[in-house]
Amino acid sequence: MQIIHTVQALREWRKTAGRVAFVPTMGNLHEGHMALVREAKKHADSVVVSIFVNRLQFGQGEDFDKYPRTLQQDADKLAAEGVAVVFAPDEKELYPRVEQRYNVEPPHLQNELCGKFRPGHFRGVATVVTKLFNIVAPDAACFGKKDYQQLAVIKGFVEDLNFNIDIIPVDTGRAPDGLALSSRNQYLSEAERAEAPRLYRELQQAAAALKSGATDYVAIETAATDALTAAGWSVDYFEIRHADNLAVARAGDKKLVVLAAARLGSTRLIDNLEVTLV
Amino acid sequence: MQIIHTVQALREWRKTAGRVAFVPTMGNLHEGHMALVREAKKHADSVVVSIFVNRLQFGQGEDFDKYPRTLQQDADKLAAEGVAVVFAPDEKELYPRVEQRYNVEPPHLQNELCGKFRPGHFRGVATVVTKLFNIVAPDAACFGKKDYQQLAVIKGFVEDLNFNIDIIPVDTGRAPDGLALSSRNQYLSEAERAEAPRLYRELQQAAAALKSGATDYVAIETAATDALTAAGWSVDYFEIRHADNLAVARAGDKKLVVLAAARLGSTRLIDNLEVTLV
Repeated sequence: MQIIHTVQALREWRKTAGRVAFVPTMGNLHEGHMALVREAKKHADSVVVSIFVNRLQFGQGEDFDKYPRTLQQDADKLAAEGVAVVFAPDEKELYPRVEQRYNVEPPHLQNELCGKFRPGHFRGVATVVTKLFNIVAPDAACFGKKDYQQLAVIKGFVEDLNFNIDIIPVDTGRAPDGLALSSRNQYLSEAERAEAPRLYRELQQAAAALKSGATDYVAIETAATDALTAAGWSVDYFEIRHADNLAVARAGDKKLVVLAAARLGSTRLIDNLEVTLV
Repeated sequence: MQIIHTVQALREWRKTAGRVAFVPTMGNLHEGHMALVREAKKHADSVVVSIFVNRLQFGQGEDFDKYPRTLQQDADKLAAEGVAVVFAPDEKELYPRVEQRYNVEPPHLQNELCGKFRPGHFRGVATVVTKLFNIVAPDAACFGKKDYQQLAVIKGFVEDLNFNIDIIPVDTGRAPDGLALSSRNQYLSEAERAEAPRLYRELQQAAAALKSGATDYVAIETAATDALTAAGWSVDYFEIRHADNLAVARAGDKKLVVLAAARLGSTRLIDNLEVTLV
């Protein structure tokens, strides 16, 4: 496995690499990322994993500075999975001017759900992923459903800007108690970690209500929010949306997704669950 | 020469095309475009010319509907130049959803110079050229210096979004009397056509003043604006800028460009002239 730090060297390698599948990450890899890598291997001759903590997608007061950087451990895990290249540019390599003048601007969806609490986040995601797509030139790229809104943004700009890349969604990896795998789980205290699976349980309960025919979305959302709040969570949102485009769900919609973001102490967790009604 | 109308067919052709140089146009081709095509041929095995009148870059009240569509004549000219492919998608092919949700958003420069008079124009240009770049996947692309601000926007997003495409600027083609070649020249009455070369003469005069050591940019700009106004023009702007980034020129700058846009009757003409001081 090669670790490549520059755009130029990556492009040189790319010329003879055949079909490439790409997994962009911010490093600090866990089993959820490994599931993306294993899926990527099914779609290409070579897998490229990028590791880059993208300042552009962190807001003021977010955890850019304390975001864990663990390149050596990450590289060891990826080598064991048969990854061909780790692309690990430094900030100057991706943002040589510091200022990013031209951005990929998402539509209003960027200000809803997580975007409401993280202004500029999805613009930063869309822009850095566009840059990485243009550097890696992959045939396919894998993204976790855990970041469901991010996946929607990426599918959206790939379609609207005609990127010739297959976007492959990968199911969320979970701990045995249901907690979605996330780099941020390590910020949780022991007591918070024990409480954390409630988020997924509330999603499951909402999904069960929908499947049993409940159609009062607001009542379901409010019940879950109240339950989380009573258990000490600070809920950013708990919402039922249309799974395809994340539009607010309407009566009769069959493809739904329940999405939630809530904070335990200072740690913000997100999760979601798709619900297809018949 | 093939005329290709769909993204899928273009991508199929592209797979075996070797090195490709690309000339995006809105059709109604004149000698200025042919100079772009001839330059493109120097840089690749195959030249692709796109012909697409991009609604996204026209403002309200602009000439989208009356913009001349002359595909057959255009194709004949391009065949004679040895172009490999004309890519002529219809609107539904490039904007299947009608609404373009994700856009390439330029910085404040998009609201200056021509952008001040054409809100949204450079966003529309950056977005459609990004789409075309992702469809054609060229190694190089040629753009005329006549649309100097457009060229700056394209160089800017190619750099910031890491497109792996050489952007090749091509000098402005001119009629014998100096008028920059433009599809819009055909809108001019006989009297307006006779008057039109004054725009370039004023640019030359400003350039001569700069070369002779004049440093009062505002005085030069005002003199030119007054002369054009006195001759019946309605001047949108006449400005001296830094040639590299189109920042407002400062005392001591050596690489300058004088840019102008002015209307004769209802026809808006633009032109510019680079001035390098020693």
